[in-house]
Amino acid sequence: MNTLTDATHDPALRSWVPSANAADSDFPVQNLPLGRFRPVAAEGAENAPWRVGVAIGDQVLDLRLAHEQSPWPDEVYPLLKQLGKGDLAGFLALGCPAWRLLRQALSAALAEGSEQAPFLELCLHPQSAVAMALPLVPRDYTDFYAGIHHAVTVGKLMRPDNPLLPNYKWVPIGYHGRASSVGLGGGVRRPRGQVKSSAEAPPTFAPCRRLDYELELGLWVGVGNELGHPVAMAQAEHHLYGVSLLNDWSARDMQAWEYQPLGPFLAKSFATSVSPWLVSLDALAPFRRPVQRPEGDPEPLPYLDSDFNRAFGAIDITLEVWLQTPRMRERGLPAVRLSQSNALDAYWTAAQLLAHHTSNGCNLATGDLLGTGTLSGPAPGQGGSLLELSQGGKQPLLLAGSDESRTFLEDGDTVTLRAFCQAPGAVRIGLGQVSGTVLPAL
Amino acid sequence: MNTLTDATHDPALRSWVPSANAADSDFPVQNLPLGRFRPVAAEGAENAPWRVGVAIGDQVLDLRLAHEQSPWPDEVYPLLKQLGKGDLAGFLALGCPAWRLLRQALSAALAEGSEQAPFLELCLHPQSAVAMALPLVPRDYTDFYAGIHHAVTVGKLMRPDNPLLPNYKWVPIGYHGRASSVGLGGGVRRPRGQVKSSAEAPPTFAPCRRLDYELELGLWVGVGNELGHPVAMAQAEHHLYGVSLLNDWSARDMQAWEYQPLGPFLAKSFATSVSPWLVSLDALAPFRRPVQRPEGDPEPLPYLDSDFNRAFGAIDITLEVWLQTPRMRERGLPAVRLSQSNALDAYWTAAQLLAHHTSNGCNLATGDLLGTGTLSGPAPGQGGSLLELSQGGKQPLLLAGSDESRTFLEDGDTVTLRAFCQAPGAVRIGLGQVSGTVLPAL
Repeated sequence: MNTLTDATHDPALRSWVPSANAADSDFPVQNLPLGRFRPVAAEGAENAPWRVGVAIGDQVLDLRLAHEQSPWPDEVYPLLKQLGKGDLAGFLALGCPAWRLLRQALSAALAEGSEQAPFLELCLHPQSAVAMALPLVPRDYTDFYAGIHHAVTVGKLMRPDNPLLPNYKWVPIGYHGRASSVGLGGGVRRPRGQVKSSAEAPPTFAPCRRLDYELELGLWVGVGNELGHPVAMAQAEHHLYGVSLLNDWSARDMQAWEYQPLGPFLAKSFATSVSPWLVSLDALAPFRRPVQRPEGDPEPLPYLDSDFNRAFGAIDITLEVWLQTPRMRERGLPAVRLSQSNALDAYWTAAQLLAHHTSNGCNLATGDLLGTGTLSGPAPGQGGSLLELSQGGKQPLLLAGSDESRTFLEDGDTVTLRAFCQAPGAVRIGLGQVSGTVLPAL
Repeated sequence: MNTLTDATHDPALRSWVPSANAADSDFPVQNLPLGRFRPVAAEGAENAPWRVGVAIGDQVLDLRLAHEQSPWPDEVYPLLKQLGKGDLAGFLALGCPAWRLLRQALSAALAEGSEQAPFLELCLHPQSAVAMALPLVPRDYTDFYAGIHHAVTVGKLMRPDNPLLPNYKWVPIGYHGRASSVGLGGGVRRPRGQVKSSAEAPPTFAPCRRLDYELELGLWVGVGNELGHPVAMAQAEHHLYGVSLLNDWSARDMQAWEYQPLGPFLAKSFATSVSPWLVSLDALAPFRRPVQRPEGDPEPLPYLDSDFNRAFGAIDITLEVWLQTPRMRERGLPAVRLSQSNALDAYWTAAQLLAHHTSNGCNLATGDLLGTGTLSGPAPGQGGSLLELSQGGKQPLLLAGSDESRTFLEDGDTVTLRAFCQAPGAVRIGLGQVSGTVLPAL
């Protein structure tokens, strides 16, 4: 706990929704992430509009019903009315004061002893009975490269003598990604593209043979900025609503051939998958940490620096990748964990990514998505991609408790990203998960 | 003229709008580009919804008024009703048959002798009395690198011994651009960013000192494709509605420092400017040419090849850059032409860019914008950027008829891109222009 927390983070707080109080729940009453859903059992469900809900334990609080069926503090009604219409983007555009107001109201309403409980009990759907949508339709999507251990490991594979480029510790490196192919996972079609069998051979157009995932966080913009008006570090976090998981699917063979000189393109644009629940930066307050820049590294330039960022810019989020192969599925075996890492190892903070992005005047909008880049740990087994774990495909990764191994993904493989926060004096909160299964190339 | 043309391209066709018949008009009755506008003189004009119009000579035909006030063939009414509501994107999503139907109807209606003339005369606004909007709000924006002479010249500056990378003649190189900062020009703020005074010096955050333009065409997607479903070459042009001019403003000093290894980012995302009129591929039919691949170059891979593309893939469009400095403006001197080049020199065709973009399953949508990349000619004076014309800033460019020179853009400089098509047996058509004036850094 720290000076950023308030009563909504109180570890003693419990919910009248029993599953929210389980020690391993991603969604205790201290979390309260927002998402868009619709019940799957209802008649005409496929065409029903998406509604905004709050994850609590294994349930979803339906904010349309909650607005209609429960009393609320006066100042919360307009927010719930907007959210009740399914307008999550419009709510986020209202900014921090509205976000805090809603968080406090939801915290009180879902806490044990709330007088709203009898009304709100009627507004819950089991998460197992709803379909989820993208929380926001991303307007623009930018992918950064803030994971320095990933940058070093990948750099070593390509430039053994010069793994980290000279700009890395000065510039939060990023590139524009493809917004249209951002989705929630599910089936991910193996792409076809130009690949080479050797450095000398001409390329052929064939299914990708080095399909990979990348373990990232997605940062979601709540409040935009006008073109030509950079956001200063001191305000940067007021523009960010929250985070989700992000899998930056990557076709390594296509990438190696296409990426010079303008960066990755078709090697990435076939799919990017995010988890459906937006966990607010407010919910992450107990897990904020000082930034630990290695000694001897350059200080951030002033436009990337602030006292707040130095004291609280980093976020302690444990990140995991799990894999279930078709054979495991056939045998009834669960997924195996491929790696665990932590967002504390990112070289640049969320605020720095946003401030840098706007520093040239570029305009962000509500619903813009910023990927952090692959968040790998410093140890060899902490790579956030198979490229790292298999040393560029040279060293097959043995899958624990199975006789299988992987260099890259095979058809039918299911990749699941998970993340959670734990700290002394705080209740564990989770980001949920995002899963994708590789479908064979057409 | 060729087998792609029809009665709407007949060079004998004249319009009852007199200015459309001027030899130097960009918008004769053979062109009929679509755009979004609103009259500036009307009361409450700043808040009025954008309407769809057709440029004809120096006038705009207002399709809302045209729908209400003129008789039309029965099958055209539903199209005009949609366009009358200002829904240009919805119209484009209808695809080629609708585009052709409208073109034929507008051609007949605006041609000399049309019985609709007395009605449509009341539906014209002078172009000088309307404000223009982006024709479409680009969903995603992709910038290609199809100008081989640009790639060679820029490559020489960075890699004298290896100017063209090995992938260039195989892969239509491209990268995702920033959609949110695409606009119509006007004032373009000089960006600030990380720049270096020498290779050894640490970077500083300062106004860009090497601000540049890039002369490109913008290709606008009319009909999208589903994720996972590539568009074959044979269908590629059915997905493209038309073209505009595109200025890919570039901060060369920021770009040189940031672009490795993931490509250009803040050096481009502060502004991209397009011209407001969408000139349809149909209108360009008389100017289609066979693709001229240099002898010895590899054949395009089958997914980038078609008989139609070989016979008609190239488009003969003359492209020009004009510059007016503040001193010229003070002295009442007109802009000077910096360069002239031709889209025939592009290495990849519009169909190849679109087919490549979707070849991995990436989904395009109505309103997506594809930049061709800088379209330079082979001669030194035909560079489509100051980077090329000034040899990387080493050789200041003398401005004809003035005592001024430029290596890169200075505050107050106005850059104007223009383009037009001319061919024997065809009426000249133009793309109009896009102008931007450099505003000093904040």
